[in-house]
Amino acid sequence: MTQNMTWITGSVTAPRGFRAAGVRCGIKSQGKDLALIVSDTPATVAGMFTTNRAAAPCVRYSRHVVEAGTARAIIANSGNANAATGEEGFMDNVRMAQKVAQLLECPPAQVVTASTGIIGHRLPIEKVEKGIEQAMLELSPDGGNAAAEAIMTTDTVPKQEAIRLHLPAGAVHIGGIAKGAGMIAPNMATMLCFLTTDAQIASPALQQVLKDAVERSFHCLTIDSDTSTNDMVVILANGQSGVDVHRYLNDFQMALENLCIRLAQRIARDGEGATKLVEIEVRGAPTFTQARKMAKTVAESPLVKTALFGNDPNWGRVLAAMGRSGVDFDPDRAQIALQGTLVYTEGKPTAFDARELHEQLKTDTVTIVIDLQEGTEHATVWTCDFSYDYVRINAEYHT
Amino acid sequence: MTQNMTWITGSVTAPRGFRAAGVRCGIKSQGKDLALIVSDTPATVAGMFTTNRAAAPCVRYSRHVVEAGTARAIIANSGNANAATGEEGFMDNVRMAQKVAQLLECPPAQVVTASTGIIGHRLPIEKVEKGIEQAMLELSPDGGNAAAEAIMTTDTVPKQEAIRLHLPAGAVHIGGIAKGAGMIAPNMATMLCFLTTDAQIASPALQQVLKDAVERSFHCLTIDSDTSTNDMVVILANGQSGVDVHRYLNDFQMALENLCIRLAQRIARDGEGATKLVEIEVRGAPTFTQARKMAKTVAESPLVKTALFGNDPNWGRVLAAMGRSGVDFDPDRAQIALQGTLVYTEGKPTAFDARELHEQLKTDTVTIVIDLQEGTEHATVWTCDFSYDYVRINAEYHT
Repeated sequence: MTQNMTWITGSVTAPRGFRAAGVRCGIKSQGKDLALIVSDTPATVAGMFTTNRAAAPCVRYSRHVVEAGTARAIIANSGNANAATGEEGFMDNVRMAQKVAQLLECPPAQVVTASTGIIGHRLPIEKVEKGIEQAMLELSPDGGNAAAEAIMTTDTVPKQEAIRLHLPAGAVHIGGIAKGAGMIAPNMATMLCFLTTDAQIASPALQQVLKDAVERSFHCLTIDSDTSTNDMVVILANGQSGVDVHRYLNDFQMALENLCIRLAQRIARDGEGATKLVEIEVRGAPTFTQARKMAKTVAESPLVKTALFGNDPNWGRVLAAMGRSGVDFDPDRAQIALQGTLVYTEGKPTAFDARELHEQLKTDTVTIVIDLQEGTEHATVWTCDFSYDYVRINAEYHT
Repeated sequence: MTQNMTWITGSVTAPRGFRAAGVRCGIKSQGKDLALIVSDTPATVAGMFTTNRAAAPCVRYSRHVVEAGTARAIIANSGNANAATGEEGFMDNVRMAQKVAQLLECPPAQVVTASTGIIGHRLPIEKVEKGIEQAMLELSPDGGNAAAEAIMTTDTVPKQEAIRLHLPAGAVHIGGIAKGAGMIAPNMATMLCFLTTDAQIASPALQQVLKDAVERSFHCLTIDSDTSTNDMVVILANGQSGVDVHRYLNDFQMALENLCIRLAQRIARDGEGATKLVEIEVRGAPTFTQARKMAKTVAESPLVKTALFGNDPNWGRVLAAMGRSGVDFDPDRAQIALQGTLVYTEGKPTAFDARELHEQLKTDTVTIVIDLQEGTEHATVWTCDFSYDYVRINAEYHT
């Protein structure tokens, strides 16, 4: 965060000219399950999508929307991923976009679609269409929270953030909602993040800024190393602030990155069965990519994650994960610190007080700092611990 | 298995000219913790070692033994990995080799060393040296079982196999012991496998044959995707059968591969907290490497493994893991079968009976067959399910 940025309340409706709604259309057994975000005017759009080969129809469809560069709305349902549903599933997704387009009187190619939930079941498309009509009626400049609720699956809390960026030409706003919690039972796919901004920015610049922000936020987030069929991050920029940000792209990118990092942290903290947020930083690396690769390997190690669940200062598992990360380093030069205590240096453990550190790990945020002392680059990755509840959530549900 | 191969009882002492012992020297709180395997005559040696950057002294030392090509003995302790122990740890490892060499009257460079257990603690080297003296006294042609016991950490059963290969020139034998169970609490490192054979074979040929056998056995084994600092597979060939196998390398390699596959399956079945062996085969792939890569991604998915613990026919998680494996395939052409039942084809689930399949998954061996219908290559990977006990074993122990 720099001095020209302020956190504000709200989310996707914090920027000017956006309305949202979250309604219940009846896909899930209870709760809101359909979110709609609308820009009053055509917005430039950018997006990042799952690289999963078995990508769902919504991902394949929304990629085209992003390529075309202009969008009016995002429609998203929870409770059903509409993935592995064949040709019929693809047509159901098209119908979702068409219904929104018809009511907004815009081309269906300007409607981003997203689905999250169970794989391999047809979407109850009539219910969704009725839900879209209802959502249109409920669209409101205060609807961000309802939309954040409507995209939740096993998430225990809605996730939203908004930021104001003060530029010489005026203020612009960015807002976002997200859902996560691992790939999520039952077959629940998906990390979704929908972002809005009232900045004036062209689609190619927006795409580049989004890519850079995601690189150091959501791409640094890992719950259980599973990448779903439906993941997407989409941003709409409607220019309603009247502030052209092309001259301030660095500032805009930093604001967006900070917002995305906060959302990523919220997702990690709410990971399935999580009892704590775990922040792993690798410093002194030759490149950012190598730093992130090592941090991710540590973050994805079931042995490290179960140790943290047990509040065990088990640096040996961290070292072993570093060693198998594929990143070249000298184990005799590397250092590991847990909660600010140096536990490993010069190829050996330090004489740290294991009992005291065990007590210090009994908290809701744990930091592991690894210093390779090989270079000047660093990366931070967020994850959560691995508890009985992860197994319960993912084993006890039956498809 | 081909007709010229027979499973026989025993393990590393089944081949002629090998003796072994397993004793208690006092590293672990209870049970045998020191294994010694000796060839009566100098043997050719080959080995495969962990690629972990933080490799333990025993790995660095034994690599040199394998490079030199000749060995008389393998000495292995459990309960302490002698890893991340600095210069002193390296010298402790040398002392282990020296003690064996002194008693066998051979060069220390002919003694393979191995350690498995807790990371970051000095080895009680005096106890180990006394244990080596005791083990020498107990060396026996029936000592294979005791050696298999002495390398166990959280393994619940010793793992051993032996095979006889009938060649036109006579019979040769291969025997092996192994330990596994994931990377294993507390910081317990290591998959270890020690193999012996009375075949006559030169060191380079032995290395190639071992590499090929490991490629389709231990390299197809994954418990929790953690690769330890101490993993090794070593084979001694003493030629005591009088049968030169260079003309029958294919047969010899197949026998060795079959033996290693049985040991790998035993390790998977005894994975930490495992309730079942899971065999994942990918067929119809363009290459073996791609088939194995996809099978491993499925095998390492916590979501797939927790579903199998819950006996849930959750093909959606299998498809999602296939999709993120990095292997190119057409989701509309691929097929997935669980326990012999086709559950996914033509981009959609079949109308299988989920309740019946749920019942069929309540067994100790589960098979998942994925047919990509893209090529003619296939690979099989072994793993286990992911249970509450995995979390318990890995979280409740405190270093």
